[in-house]
Amino acid sequence: MTETKKTTIVLFSGEYDKAMAAYIIANGAAAYDHEVTIFHTFWGLNALRKDEQVALKKGFLEKMFGKMMPRGADKMGISKMNFAGMGPKMIKHVIKKHNAMTLPQLIELAEEQDIKLVACTMTMDLLGLQQEELLEGIEYAGVAAYLGDAQDGNVNLFI
Amino acid sequence: MTETKKTTIVLFSGEYDKAMAAYIIANGAAAYDHEVTIFHTFWGLNALRKDEQVALKKGFLEKMFGKMMPRGADKMGISKMNFAGMGPKMIKHVIKKHNAMTLPQLIELAEEQDIKLVACTMTMDLLGLQQEELLEGIEYAGVAAYLGDAQDGNVNLFI
Amino acid sequence: MTETKKTTIVLFSGEYDKAMAAYIIANGAAAYDHEVTIFHTFWGLNALRKDEQVALKKGFLEKMFGKMMPRGADKMGISKMNFAGMGPKMIKHVIKKHNAMTLPQLIELAEEQDIKLVACTMTMDLLGLQQEELLEGIEYAGVAAYLGDAQDGNVNLFI
Repeated sequence: MTETKKTTIVLFSGEYDKAMAAYIIANGAAAYDHEVTIFHTFWGLNALRKDEQVALKKGFLEKMFGKMMPRGADKMGISKMNFAGMGPKMIKHVIKKHNAMTLPQLIELAEEQDIKLVACTMTMDLLGLQQEELLEGIEYAGVAAYLGDAQDGNVNLFI
Repeated sequence: MTETKKTTIVLFSGEYDKAMAAYIIANGAAAYDHEVTIFHTFWGLNALRKDEQVALKKGFLEKMFGKMMPRGADKMGISKMNFAGMGPKMIKHVIKKHNAMTLPQLIELAEEQDIKLVACTMTMDLLGLQQEELLEGIEYAGVAAYLGDAQDGNVNLFI
Repeated sequence: MTETKKTTIVLFSGEYDKAMAAYIIANGAAAYDHEVTIFHTFWGLNALRKDEQVALKKGFLEKMFGKMMPRGADKMGISKMNFAGMGPKMIKHVIKKHNAMTLPQLIELAEEQDIKLVACTMTMDLLGLQQEELLEGIEYAGVAAYLGDAQDGNVNLFI
């Protein structure tokens, strides 16, 4: 009898390339039969935003955060060589050219592979993000739930 | 008989939001009865600086590093959306509004929960930081001590 | 009988200071008799580039990436306080002053200690990097090989 291996990733960063790395490792681990959790906190929450604007009652600061942060995976910038926005375009261009997967495709694959996508409720609160603005089918939890998964994890990463 | 679980965090980053994430996870793990260590290295050392200036004999470069780096947790910038310094103010404002804990409060809580706060002696040397400039009650160690903790860790993160 | 401990590091970041931290931990772990792997992906691949230009047939985008990215460890910028390029010079200056090791020396030591240096083939493809441009004696693999190492790792970090 072998025990199921576990992988957990805290996705803190809001950059396209870092989120790609997180989702590539997560999808690889799921293909390897690991139980996989991605815990989205702080700027990493942006990967889970819907790309349309959702009409919601919000305070001034929450509105500002909402406007300033990218709406969904496809809108995220990259961590290096952003060169007036050229960076993300170049990355997306080479992804297409090499038939690799874009970030939105990697997120879709993660959902198909039953990777547990979690949004950190504490930072949702801080940044004024509401469940209506995030993708369907994700889970909501705090740091205690993350630690419950991670303490039995074989591979735990913070990205 | 259950063994005590262990969490170790290398705090390399000098940003307010990343240090917050580190201390939130660390405090959560301590509340979960983990033995917790935060190993502060490179820019992460700034979280442990006292906020006053300490008169010390230093070389020119060490003085410059000392001046350029933030003096303590409350002075750190954020990793995203710094917008002419508005970012940290916004974050601190929403923290207060939501009755969440600021970084200095999270560090205090970590001390109360007996989380082991370690300053990396090698990078203190490189950056010209001296023990008189850092908070009381912390420990001083190198990478070997970190690895001694981490190799038995259940959750090991680099932030 | 004690089992060999394992350390794996994903080096995603392309900054001098972050790569230093990765190689210091890796060399420390090797000195501690761990089996150590550094998996270089995305901008972390730049640490493995040769410092000369290698004549290769490449497409336009691949050429641009090749030009824009630093050629080798010694050319990498730092993650904080880059101040018109002064940061890396200051860091290198204090390293020399304190008789610490530079990044190229840390990489050499890693090779001597038989640390497995791996280049991620998927991102090599995306960024148009070819084996001729990278250091001799390294290995080439994808995310599955990384996970094979990491799932038995005692210390797994993403830097």
